[in-house]
Amino acid sequence: MLSEEYATPALVVDLEALERNLGAMAAATARRGVALRPHTKTHKCIEIARRQIALGAVGLSVATVGEAEVFADAGVDDLFIAYPVWADRARRGRLAALAERVRLLVGVDSVAGAQAMGRTVAGADAVVEALVEVDSGHHRSGCAPSDAAAVAGAAEGAGLAVRGAFTFPGHAYAPRAAPGAAADEGRSLTEAAAALGAAGFDPSVRSGGSTPTALVPGAGATELRPGVYAFNDAQQVALGTCRTSDVALAAVATVVSAPAPGRLVLDSGSKILGADRPDWLAGHGLLPDLPGAVVTGLSEHHAVVQLASGGRSPPAIGQRVTVVPNHVCNAVNLADELFVVRGGRVVDCWGVAARGRLT
Amino acid sequence: MLSEEYATPALVVDLEALERNLGAMAAATARRGVALRPHTKTHKCIEIARRQIALGAVGLSVATVGEAEVFADAGVDDLFIAYPVWADRARRGRLAALAERVRLLVGVDSVAGAQAMGRTVAGADAVVEALVEVDSGHHRSGCAPSDAAAVAGAAEGAGLAVRGAFTFPGHAYAPRAAPGAAADEGRSLTEAAAALGAAGFDPSVRSGGSTPTALVPGAGATELRPGVYAFNDAQQVALGTCRTSDVALAAVATVVSAPAPGRLVLDSGSKILGADRPDWLAGHGLLPDLPGAVVTGLSEHHAVVQLASGGRSPPAIGQRVTVVPNHVCNAVNLADELFVVRGGRVVDCWGVAARGRLT
Repeated sequence: MLSEEYATPALVVDLEALERNLGAMAAATARRGVALRPHTKTHKCIEIARRQIALGAVGLSVATVGEAEVFADAGVDDLFIAYPVWADRARRGRLAALAERVRLLVGVDSVAGAQAMGRTVAGADAVVEALVEVDSGHHRSGCAPSDAAAVAGAAEGAGLAVRGAFTFPGHAYAPRAAPGAAADEGRSLTEAAAALGAAGFDPSVRSGGSTPTALVPGAGATELRPGVYAFNDAQQVALGTCRTSDVALAAVATVVSAPAPGRLVLDSGSKILGADRPDWLAGHGLLPDLPGAVVTGLSEHHAVVQLASGGRSPPAIGQRVTVVPNHVCNAVNLADELFVVRGGRVVDCWGVAARGRLT
Repeated sequence: MLSEEYATPALVVDLEALERNLGAMAAATARRGVALRPHTKTHKCIEIARRQIALGAVGLSVATVGEAEVFADAGVDDLFIAYPVWADRARRGRLAALAERVRLLVGVDSVAGAQAMGRTVAGADAVVEALVEVDSGHHRSGCAPSDAAAVAGAAEGAGLAVRGAFTFPGHAYAPRAAPGAAADEGRSLTEAAAALGAAGFDPSVRSGGSTPTALVPGAGATELRPGVYAFNDAQQVALGTCRTSDVALAAVATVVSAPAPGRLVLDSGSKILGADRPDWLAGHGLLPDLPGAVVTGLSEHHAVVQLASGGRSPPAIGQRVTVVPNHVCNAVNLADELFVVRGGRVVDCWGVAARGRLT
């Protein structure tokens, strides 16, 4: 991954690891009989979206209208904006245009949000389908499962076609939390679907999410929306979701300074790695080439590395080192392109097509 | 700042506050008789760089060769890459091309780095000037001040023109730390200049940095390189460097969910605010419109806000709210454009010209 065909810092994809990850998730969800709708906020790349569809994904998940537009332009015809989108004036026309050319699902978690979204389809020919977002324990967005029918009622009243419920069990992002979060997810989706069905709404889609919970055996979801699994990252390694050898994307950095014994400075700062650091992670990135070393400090263009005492001799100034980002979704969103490597050689360069499509 | 002329989340510049900030720093450095070389990594905008030059800046600071290229293309003719740039093969031609069209200064903090940089100018007509980076207590890059002459010797031996020393007192980024860090900065620059002068090198430039220390009375620096002061941010407010009314950039977000009493969700996640959160900051952004409220959680597209109990009635779903990023440099690097507001109206839209120029 250390080719001189690109300047550092750069994000580099290990194509073989990526393809293993994509194949393993497709196979695992198929074995369990649940649909896979990968979240593209992680990779934002058309080349990876196409591989996911080719491996059997029923469609894609996105976070924003702008991301949906990028993947619709690339020919993907089934998109779920897994977010309580506020359909203001500017977005309504864009949503209606999307709904005319793809199967479009959106998230709703409030009566007000559903009513605003309904104005998107008022007078338009297109159908916008809706999944009610429920809170399964992450306490971010999402109504209580018992309130799902009230939100669904507002959605149908506003002209949306309700298809079920979705949740994001983000409280899986803590040590040993995934089994409990997966159980919460299943229970919340089951409860929401029961509430929807009892009130006469279609409860058929029960969409869950998250890379840490996707492979936890469980029941309740008919569809899963993991995103990070394509690349993995230091968070997933720390959570035990994957091994370091399953990481398919890393920053390649150059040692730019060795100012004191045991300390190196790399050119991979927070403008390429992202600044994410949950309390339960020791450093600002994982250093597979430097066992025991820790990224103790991160500035915009500097990663300060404390080497393990007694380790092998450190890389010299000018040498290259790989750093696995803590949170790959935010790292990818900082890059315009990803260098793609197979067998140690750069074989492609993918544009991060949906980078910065925040609205 | 809440115009519907742009979709949210968006970064919005308060032009009057920006111009006040630019003017105040220009005046304060002029009063002290130190040169101002603003760091452009904060704003990455040609329109702001031109204002800084017009207000008397002697040149600009940048972090990367790519940033230097952007501002050279915009007509700035005096650029300091305040970084221990590793001049690998790909960068050497770019550095030489820059040195042919602008006055180019680079940072060096090691013999190896100086020698590699020297290969940039070997055989070329251009002069590359160098400042030796010294560590004034931040313990990132930079040699010990007492080692400055050894690095300078390698630099001159490799064909660079040594002009003095620089440092970044980044240990000012902690509560009540600025006075001590400013004193460290002055002492280190003075010591480095003495070492350079004693060894026969030109010690005339003593360049210091940082918004928290720039206005601390002190001596030692002949030049200052603050960057954040143009916009300020939640970190600067918490450090006491500025007031909330001095903040010139904020994210404008929409309330997308109000899932539980006292909790709101905004569409300004870490993909617009950045994920920076030092231990000494309470939340993931400052909410000037919502006194006492805290951004308790940040996902890529969600900011979870806990409202103050007993506060006035919260904004409804669909309403807009401003959020001041913790670290404005990383926030700006996430946006392709900044909406510029004067007197409550959008008067311009500036491209973030150097966004993502990491190499």
